[in-house]
Amino acid sequence: MRATTIQAPYDIRFGDVPDPRVLRPTDAIVRVTATCICGSDLWPYRGENDVTAGDRIGHEFVGVVEETGEQVSSVRAGEFVIAPFSWGDNSCRTCRDGVNTSCENGGWWGSPDREGLPVDGCQGEFIRVPLADGTLVATPSLPSDEQLPDLLALSDVMGTGWHCATGAAVGAGDTVAVVGDGAVGLSAVLAAALKGASVIIAMSRHEPRQKLASEFGAHHVVAERGEEGAARVRELTDGRGVDAALECVGTDAAMGTAVAVTRPGGRVGFVGAPHGVHVPVGTLFSRNIQLGGGVASVRQYIPQLRDRVLAGEIHPGRVFDLELPLADVAEGYAAMHERRAIKTLLRP
Amino acid sequence: MRATTIQAPYDIRFGDVPDPRVLRPTDAIVRVTATCICGSDLWPYRGENDVTAGDRIGHEFVGVVEETGEQVSSVRAGEFVIAPFSWGDNSCRTCRDGVNTSCENGGWWGSPDREGLPVDGCQGEFIRVPLADGTLVATPSLPSDEQLPDLLALSDVMGTGWHCATGAAVGAGDTVAVVGDGAVGLSAVLAAALKGASVIIAMSRHEPRQKLASEFGAHHVVAERGEEGAARVRELTDGRGVDAALECVGTDAAMGTAVAVTRPGGRVGFVGAPHGVHVPVGTLFSRNIQLGGGVASVRQYIPQLRDRVLAGEIHPGRVFDLELPLADVAEGYAAMHERRAIKTLLRP
Repeated sequence: MRATTIQAPYDIRFGDVPDPRVLRPTDAIVRVTATCICGSDLWPYRGENDVTAGDRIGHEFVGVVEETGEQVSSVRAGEFVIAPFSWGDNSCRTCRDGVNTSCENGGWWGSPDREGLPVDGCQGEFIRVPLADGTLVATPSLPSDEQLPDLLALSDVMGTGWHCATGAAVGAGDTVAVVGDGAVGLSAVLAAALKGASVIIAMSRHEPRQKLASEFGAHHVVAERGEEGAARVRELTDGRGVDAALECVGTDAAMGTAVAVTRPGGRVGFVGAPHGVHVPVGTLFSRNIQLGGGVASVRQYIPQLRDRVLAGEIHPGRVFDLELPLADVAEGYAAMHERRAIKTLLRP
Repeated sequence: MRATTIQAPYDIRFGDVPDPRVLRPTDAIVRVTATCICGSDLWPYRGENDVTAGDRIGHEFVGVVEETGEQVSSVRAGEFVIAPFSWGDNSCRTCRDGVNTSCENGGWWGSPDREGLPVDGCQGEFIRVPLADGTLVATPSLPSDEQLPDLLALSDVMGTGWHCATGAAVGAGDTVAVVGDGAVGLSAVLAAALKGASVIIAMSRHEPRQKLASEFGAHHVVAERGEEGAARVRELTDGRGVDAALECVGTDAAMGTAVAVTRPGGRVGFVGAPHGVHVPVGTLFSRNIQLGGGVASVRQYIPQLRDRVLAGEIHPGRVFDLELPLADVAEGYAAMHERRAIKTLLRP
């Protein structure tokens, strides 16, 4: 089969790799019907994370089960499935605590498992899914082609935005600011709206993203950044700051803005993998600002979000503004890197 | 009257200062019946915070109201009152959000108010209390001499320990580790017990403090520090770490230990004023550990804790293991600095 590898920064290739097969009785083989590129894939793409030539890449996909190992019982061949961006058993005590990304038996797509067996990256035609019962979430029937992007968004960005709002304990009536207008930030706007926030302020400088933020439920858009942006948010909240700020970038500047716009006693949710972030602990202390979030436990959220998608209530797939054949994956990366696209959907 | 001043690091004096009087109609004058020295008073004592010669010091007291301004309605002359370690209106939107230490009209003992009027430090014979209605909490009748230490502890350490447990959302059945065996750490043990924690691990190397921790409800004492201490806590929690860690020191080492002993998805509460703390944000992210707390909103907690003290349910005043005449305040500081005392109670 063919799949995506990264050879070096800015060098993404699509080519032949070994066909996956069932290696353990808990495995499933899934034929990918859609995958995509994540903002976090841009860290290695830009050389900000280490890259080893030939690394498999991608951690989001939906598809149809081709084959299952003999111990797999919750999904079967022919079913449509959504995968979270980490795989795991969904049953150990840590998963039961709601932290699937720290699963005691799980791991990451594209990296070897605990026993050294390679695990596929997700920007490929087929994927061996370890611990398929715990990892995959099926739909009751095959979804329509129009539903595909919405379901694919549950693989990471929508669940991650939801996790950010959960980490900041967003609830009915809250005022919320979202820092970051990538696909996760936009999804966080939608999540805050679903959780009943009464005022949502999206911090975004890019017109198409501002527009989507508004469609997802933002009441205000603040284009200013840094202290100027923070001042504008305070102005919009009667001088006081928001109840909850959602940090969806992972940079020090974004964290600083999130803390700066939060009222005393408010909450900051964060889901951007921290790159050079220094938490302003003195401000958290003096203003009693809570920090919550982390690498999102999207597996927890897929069933409820899937049901909302299938009911037509939400369209998180609107974050995909570029669709390419999987073979053109390199162009998909370039388009996101150059901010020509918010998020690229790829079809094998 | 006489009160305490700090002249330079390690130079504490007790001497004449101007008598306080009602300066605003919202003031009360309180005759101090007991005050004490806080672990945080040791920061300026040791020269780790800036000191200006003659600074008034101390932020904890109980006493009897002598006189009230004409707008004061909730306390009256002759009543026994407990003061939190910050003064404020307890009615602005920030106080209503539960964050009295960020009161929009309040301030700190021993520092000038927003209009430059000096505010008394609390290690003195009398105190002018600004915004007396919002600041002071009265008892229904004059307490006994034995109850005095327990009520004085509500001025800071017991409420601060409670705030730490609240910041870490300690609830029934939780496993909890407390980092720090000062008066706040010991109070945090008591708070965790009151909130229903089923396993409490006190990290303490000092025998008298270990003993008090056990009396306050600790089930285990871990004397090891750093990575060795963290390993011991994980051992006591079946390899997994605690649901909540309470950081009651304010140093980088204490924060590191608190994060290291917390399970994925767990919570760290922190109430020690951060001195050189670098939050390990990568670990918070990868393990989904929540950070909450800050400068404690003890005013919120005084009424309920007062009722528990008056009912004889709790004895937070046991943290006082040295009692001196207020005139000997300098010896009280030295005893705490040299760890000869956990906490010094001073009577005028």
